[in-house]
Amino acid sequence: MLLGVDYYPEQWAPSCMEADMDRIVELGCNVIRIGEFAWHRMEPQEGAYDFSFFDGVIDLAKKKGLQIIFGTPTATPPAWLIDKYPDVLSQFEDGAPRVFGGRHTYCFSSAVYREYCKKIVTKLARHYRNEKAIVAWQVDNELGHEGSDLCWCPRCRDAFQQYLNRKFGGDIYLLNETYGTAFWSQEYNRFDEIPLPAPTITTHNPALRLDWERFCSENIVSFANLQTEILHREIPGCTVIHDFPGGGLTKHVDYSDVSKKLDRVAYNNYPVWGGQKEPLLPSEIAFGLDYIRGLRRENFWVTEAIMGAQGHDITGFLPRPGQAKMWSWQAMAHGCDSLIYFRYRGATKGAEQFCYGLLDADNIPRRRFFEAQNFFQTVREYEDVLSAPIPSDVAILYDYDSLASFRIQQQSLLLDCEREMKRLHSVFFKAGQTVDVIPARMDFSKYRLVVIPHMIVTDPDFAQRLKAYVAAGGVAVVTYRTAVKDRDNNLTFGKVIPVDCDDLLGLVVEETESVQEWDCIPLRGQDRCATAGVFRDMIAPTTAQVLYRYDDAFYRDFAAVTCNSFGQGAAYYLGTTPDEATLTSLLHQAMKRAGLVPLSLPEGVESVVRKGQTRTLRFLINHNDHSVDTLGVSLEPFGVAILSF
Amino acid sequence: MLLGVDYYPEQWAPSCMEADMDRIVELGCNVIRIGEFAWHRMEPQEGAYDFSFFDGVIDLAKKKGLQIIFGTPTATPPAWLIDKYPDVLSQFEDGAPRVFGGRHTYCFSSAVYREYCKKIVTKLARHYRNEKAIVAWQVDNELGHEGSDLCWCPRCRDAFQQYLNRKFGGDIYLLNETYGTAFWSQEYNRFDEIPLPAPTITTHNPALRLDWERFCSENIVSFANLQTEILHREIPGCTVIHDFPGGGLTKHVDYSDVSKKLDRVAYNNYPVWGGQKEPLLPSEIAFGLDYIRGLRRENFWVTEAIMGAQGHDITGFLPRPGQAKMWSWQAMAHGCDSLIYFRYRGATKGAEQFCYGLLDADNIPRRRFFEAQNFFQTVREYEDVLSAPIPSDVAILYDYDSLASFRIQQQSLLLDCEREMKRLHSVFFKAGQTVDVIPARMDFSKYRLVVIPHMIVTDPDFAQRLKAYVAAGGVAVVTYRTAVKDRDNNLTFGKVIPVDCDDLLGLVVEETESVQEWDCIPLRGQDRCATAGVFRDMIAPTTAQVLYRYDDAFYRDFAAVTCNSFGQGAAYYLGTTPDEATLTSLLHQAMKRAGLVPLSLPEGVESVVRKGQTRTLRFLINHNDHSVDTLGVSLEPFGVAILSF
Amino acid sequence: MLLGVDYYPEQWAPSCMEADMDRIVELGCNVIRIGEFAWHRMEPQEGAYDFSFFDGVIDLAKKKGLQIIFGTPTATPPAWLIDKYPDVLSQFEDGAPRVFGGRHTYCFSSAVYREYCKKIVTKLARHYRNEKAIVAWQVDNELGHEGSDLCWCPRCRDAFQQYLNRKFGGDIYLLNETYGTAFWSQEYNRFDEIPLPAPTITTHNPALRLDWERFCSENIVSFANLQTEILHREIPGCTVIHDFPGGGLTKHVDYSDVSKKLDRVAYNNYPVWGGQKEPLLPSEIAFGLDYIRGLRRENFWVTEAIMGAQGHDITGFLPRPGQAKMWSWQAMAHGCDSLIYFRYRGATKGAEQFCYGLLDADNIPRRRFFEAQNFFQTVREYEDVLSAPIPSDVAILYDYDSLASFRIQQQSLLLDCEREMKRLHSVFFKAGQTVDVIPARMDFSKYRLVVIPHMIVTDPDFAQRLKAYVAAGGVAVVTYRTAVKDRDNNLTFGKVIPVDCDDLLGLVVEETESVQEWDCIPLRGQDRCATAGVFRDMIAPTTAQVLYRYDDAFYRDFAAVTCNSFGQGAAYYLGTTPDEATLTSLLHQAMKRAGLVPLSLPEGVESVVRKGQTRTLRFLINHNDHSVDTLGVSLEPFGVAILSF
Repeated sequence: MLLGVDYYPEQWAPSCMEADMDRIVELGCNVIRIGEFAWHRMEPQEGAYDFSFFDGVIDLAKKKGLQIIFGTPTATPPAWLIDKYPDVLSQFEDGAPRVFGGRHTYCFSSAVYREYCKKIVTKLARHYRNEKAIVAWQVDNELGHEGSDLCWCPRCRDAFQQYLNRKFGGDIYLLNETYGTAFWSQEYNRFDEIPLPAPTITTHNPALRLDWERFCSENIVSFANLQTEILHREIPGCTVIHDFPGGGLTKHVDYSDVSKKLDRVAYNNYPVWGGQKEPLLPSEIAFGLDYIRGLRRENFWVTEAIMGAQGHDITGFLPRPGQAKMWSWQAMAHGCDSLIYFRYRGATKGAEQFCYGLLDADNIPRRRFFEAQNFFQTVREYEDVLSAPIPSDVAILYDYDSLASFRIQQQSLLLDCEREMKRLHSVFFKAGQTVDVIPARMDFSKYRLVVIPHMIVTDPDFAQRLKAYVAAGGVAVVTYRTAVKDRDNNLTFGKVIPVDCDDLLGLVVEETESVQEWDCIPLRGQDRCATAGVFRDMIAPTTAQVLYRYDDAFYRDFAAVTCNSFGQGAAYYLGTTPDEATLTSLLHQAMKRAGLVPLSLPEGVESVVRKGQTRTLRFLINHNDHSVDTLGVSLEPFGVAILSF
Repeated sequence: MLLGVDYYPEQWAPSCMEADMDRIVELGCNVIRIGEFAWHRMEPQEGAYDFSFFDGVIDLAKKKGLQIIFGTPTATPPAWLIDKYPDVLSQFEDGAPRVFGGRHTYCFSSAVYREYCKKIVTKLARHYRNEKAIVAWQVDNELGHEGSDLCWCPRCRDAFQQYLNRKFGGDIYLLNETYGTAFWSQEYNRFDEIPLPAPTITTHNPALRLDWERFCSENIVSFANLQTEILHREIPGCTVIHDFPGGGLTKHVDYSDVSKKLDRVAYNNYPVWGGQKEPLLPSEIAFGLDYIRGLRRENFWVTEAIMGAQGHDITGFLPRPGQAKMWSWQAMAHGCDSLIYFRYRGATKGAEQFCYGLLDADNIPRRRFFEAQNFFQTVREYEDVLSAPIPSDVAILYDYDSLASFRIQQQSLLLDCEREMKRLHSVFFKAGQTVDVIPARMDFSKYRLVVIPHMIVTDPDFAQRLKAYVAAGGVAVVTYRTAVKDRDNNLTFGKVIPVDCDDLLGLVVEETESVQEWDCIPLRGQDRCATAGVFRDMIAPTTAQVLYRYDDAFYRDFAAVTCNSFGQGAAYYLGTTPDEATLTSLLHQAMKRAGLVPLSLPEGVESVVRKGQTRTLRFLINHNDHSVDTLGVSLEPFGVAILSF
Repeated sequence: MLLGVDYYPEQWAPSCMEADMDRIVELGCNVIRIGEFAWHRMEPQEGAYDFSFFDGVIDLAKKKGLQIIFGTPTATPPAWLIDKYPDVLSQFEDGAPRVFGGRHTYCFSSAVYREYCKKIVTKLARHYRNEKAIVAWQVDNELGHEGSDLCWCPRCRDAFQQYLNRKFGGDIYLLNETYGTAFWSQEYNRFDEIPLPAPTITTHNPALRLDWERFCSENIVSFANLQTEILHREIPGCTVIHDFPGGGLTKHVDYSDVSKKLDRVAYNNYPVWGGQKEPLLPSEIAFGLDYIRGLRRENFWVTEAIMGAQGHDITGFLPRPGQAKMWSWQAMAHGCDSLIYFRYRGATKGAEQFCYGLLDADNIPRRRFFEAQNFFQTVREYEDVLSAPIPSDVAILYDYDSLASFRIQQQSLLLDCEREMKRLHSVFFKAGQTVDVIPARMDFSKYRLVVIPHMIVTDPDFAQRLKAYVAAGGVAVVTYRTAVKDRDNNLTFGKVIPVDCDDLLGLVVEETESVQEWDCIPLRGQDRCATAGVFRDMIAPTTAQVLYRYDDAFYRDFAAVTCNSFGQGAAYYLGTTPDEATLTSLLHQAMKRAGLVPLSLPEGVESVVRKGQTRTLRFLINHNDHSVDTLGVSLEPFGVAILSF
């Protein structure tokens, strides 16, 4: 179990380093994370590689008993490189370059930049190939974060055209047919006529836009793989990680693809950021952790855990005493098995002066330092269980193409797929049920219950897998706008919605409405009324049992929520976004059908059960700012109890 | 009477066409609209004209008994053209081009583009000059819609300079004097120094900006005329139409000028679009129809009537069963005498996947199909009356220069001329009174009542016409900010406001205030109190009778609303925007003065009387989602009754 | 005492001029302000200087007994100049130029533009060097207003690099060390690698950004000085002024630096502008006047006093009868000793048609004209007192670097330093206490009470001055975020907050929170409760007395407001933004501690005491729209009473 801090020795006077490391040891650390962002320190002028500074850091760290996670510095090209090749800079939608000065300002399509990255990573790897103190290598930093996943430069246009040329085997007629460019006379005679989907009058072809989303993702994936491959080649057996930021489902890159060639996934976990008045909801933080664990369906590291308020130009909520430590425990409960705090000491200079670390500029240990120290002391006791894998009974599936399809055509102004997923996830969270959030391409046949939210882009193969799963006894919960489009983001001619799943779900969708409000439509169930909003399907059931119908004039004959028995299993269909109580009751019903028992926990209390080889632990986590008694335990505000049985 | 659907055969597999046409006939159609947007299908490479596809479509249509409305394809330049001449693309305000991929992306000033348009339209016309099945030609599509009415490219700057050079006869001193460029040292020595009114520090000269608005309009008018003239020349006797979009009063083009050379005006009528939570108000839909009828003061076609929800990336309100059919009836009542539904079947590919047609992608006829079929069956019975002209007693005047002047200087943040006009119009709508919405340049001497809302730009000639109208017994309703500026968008030195109309109205405006709120100012009338907002004139009456005074401290001595007898007629002046009840009562008073009888109808019920040669019809239209009894008739939700007498 | 109008003779027919001047005299004027913005009239073509028009104006003015304030015309480069050198135009952040047509469109870094300015100013000065009727020269107009304080052109980038090169003595290593460019690998090898802090991914180095703010300011200062120096050199003994706009604290230029080389400061005083629903608050108008007086800590002129509503494209509140005249009196009470109305007659042409003058386009004198006339008649009686200097007991300090630092990193979304300052100032305003708003670099040792709001950037020298002030018996009121950063906008390593002032204030700030809401945090004082918001320091007092503690869970042990005795004086510390009543009570306590007596005045009534050589006046100003009785005087709505004693 690695426990440590992010330490940026190049940002401090050399005279501080020994005292810093002594105190890092005193904190309870066995590792420091260094190197990321420090390109200029390693190559102050083109070709003048110089790792002596970090040699010194590593020597001292080893002397103090600390191991190293070393980051490649490619998230921040040095000024001399940008000066020599200004067109390495990526561009905004209007063609203005992102000027040197922030981070992630490079274009992923730049062959020049890739060449320089190859060189520095290769040099680094060769220099440290025998350094046993380096326990892991991190490539770049938070790839695609903060808008860096999109670039609109002419080179990206070329690369996109080449991507399409490859995809369509050089056959422009096939592209035209696939995209339906006959619409609005958009037929291309050559691949080099194809534009980026940049601002224009009205909007671009949705199939083109989906391919653009895929191109953006592949561009980042190949950039990450380039470094991973060098590291694996140069340092056989090394552990390569990447530190993913939050919000993965909203990015123009599929992190599950980025993680494929990595050895371990790492997460930068920020329950507060910028001007937030309140932290993320407990279930939202859990969703982020479950998504990260789902990238490779295995345990992960947290490379940036926080103790203080965070933000570049704006900060917000200050985590209360004990609260951030609780978040560390929550991360462990959800599959984190190594944790690094961001950062040892807050920066006095540069853009992150208000990202608070364990220490402030005055260098005096206070509450945040001692909380981290206490956490490190305690957490080691549970290593046996925390390093065990997490088997979940429930999975929520996501699909990059479908998420992208909604970015392209949101359809309802309130339709936010990530929010809908979190809403579904929160019901399981509150029921004490562990959930894997995984890409739809993964095998889901072993789960008891699978949720498929708004998976608008599907294909016959997925439909087949889903039917086989339910037929074999699985329980599926499918929500509206699933199975509406094919893999090219087109509607399917001659097939009813849900495409290829009407038999599984026992229904046909006759009409739809984008509702643009929450909880405005009355529903009637067998013994209770409800409300719904955002969007609705007018469902004509064939074999499905109706759980709720619409109760407004004109649509009283249409179903809103149904359940269909199919083979040994059952498939629920939510044709609208129901109110929270109704959603809870429906998912509880589905859980019971799947043989799962929803726990009843006090508001704000989380329960996670983890099984080790020799013992089982229940983590009881009180996210409330007041005490709670539950399951015979009295939890302090933000308190965590670990029950062993 | 043409009844049909918009059909885009190039978007579907050829194998579908015959079955589609059979069903189009089954629907009750006698016409299909084709061709618009299909440039690449007609000219897949430069100069390689090939109309064989459409030859086949027309042959089959004729076989099935369908006639054709053929659209020129110029709204969507093909990719090869843009590839060859990228600067055909129009530009955003910041100079970024609108990239290929949407529609209407061309610059109206591009001589290159006009040349290519000339060629394709001429070729088309020559190819089909003897095709009798083509009953009408449509030029381009929704000219100036979706922001395409403005372009900021260097070529537009040149063209604008040339436009000014022509307008001022090459006399730059005359331009300087006219614009008052002495203000802020903006005197020009040469026409080629003149900028586009693009973003700068503060704001541009308002006279220059008005000429820019005129230039933009003329540019589009001449583009339309270019095609109309070719068609008229090549196919003598043909009917040329254009399909105007909604929102004409807010565009940077005067559609009444575009319509001058056309043979018929057509309208794309969208009571719902994009993320609307509710359809447009019944009176707003009527306003749009009355405006379209007013373009040439004659009946019109609807080329795009809708049955389903509509939108590119976002959709909203789904028209309830019967509701969209009711809108078709409403259009007929307001002067539509041929109606085409948009579109036969929704697109499965391309940007308009969520513009729902009569059929969905699954190709199964359902409610929307059958409603249209029912409408087509019934409407033919009324052709005798529906083809008769509509004589109105009331006119609302608009003036492109004045509308532009408010776009340039809105004066009050709430002052929205289109909204104010619709508010005035709705009082007549609710009173069952037919209204023509016409350009102020048209002769209005025959109406009983004329409304002149916010016509800030006037001239002595208009003042003279207005006085003659009232002197001869007409009733005029004039609202604030009328007759404030001259035709150059300048204030008039040495004249009181309303300029040249103070005698007609019997008052002088002493001060004004932009109020920025609704209904916040107390008014007192003879026997009732009222409120007003948005803007107010402090009126010093000379001969006018005071109907309302302000009732707040400081301005109690000033009138707010007046009426002046002038010759045989009367001129009302509204110095502010009164609350709805007060506006209604004032306009009812004006109607009575003009010898008109305001009807009293239930909320949401519209009554339109149409006279044919042999019978008179009353259309009773229930815009409510509930039943209503009125005039002895029981109307279903969204029901329409047609009483003959 | 100069009393006059802004007159723009070049904007009117020459035939008007004599009648205009006669009426200007009738109005009670002794001066007209002319010349600004009239470059083309003076140099219609390059090098063709021609001052004959203004010669005529001045001749006639002298004949009528009017003196002249002459403005240099450099705020508006003529079209021929921009045509010849288009790159004189400044640029928006995205690189688009501000096109010719507004004003202030030039880039302050343009050597070409400076050269042309030098020439025209020199020519002007030489032409009129012996013209005794010219009592003052105004340079340019409202420098840096309306966004003209920022330009993002390549030339500015060069100039910024040169500025930094000079500042760091050519030592790029010193810059790197100072900025901490080790953060995110932003080390520069050469000055010409440094970017402008234009949009990028995330945000720029805060030290770089502060230097950018300083560069922008110096650029404008040197531009003003260039002209001032020419005028002083060419016309020895002349009076040079500049007319500053409102909102000085929010500009990217330090007006106290601009004013250093001037002879007198002038102010364009706009209590209403644009779409305001209400005028600025009485105390806000007073704040603006006190800030202007503080620029050089001496009396000032008002070059643009208003009588009517104002705005370019949008106008708003119409000053009520008497209200604008009252604002003129308020300006006099606060140190104005010469007042010019903007403008004699509103423009009929050009961008300011809705900036209402004393006369409207109809040229008929009405209320606004007569109010101004009445003011001019009366104000002369008080010249003896109004020309005396104003000694204040209270100062509020501001610091350009600190204000800029909050523009760079606002920290809390609600943290608006100008608003916070105005809030503090309003307590003194309501207590009838005269306040100087002055730059922190000025000597403040003579005041009884000094307020230091949010002075985040400080240095040991300032700390020393502040300590000496309090030690000698002064009372200081310091608010949170003061003394957090050094002069490079960096946090200070190894020092507690407030840096170097913890002994003065008797406390240490242990943690902080950006609160993002008003009045949401409970406070408890000794005998009253309170609320606070926006931001908060968790204060650990050492020697300070606690006035308020936080009263929410977790932070009950930390102080929120304290007072520390230090030497002969006292230093208050406000660790948060308290509610209004609490702020008032705290500042009253501080005033009493400083020996000042807070007046108790009716809401909306202002009291200003001015001492002349022979008499003392109390100005009682009723900002209410209703009558008020106070101090034995009955004040009309917007009435002003001047009590002599």
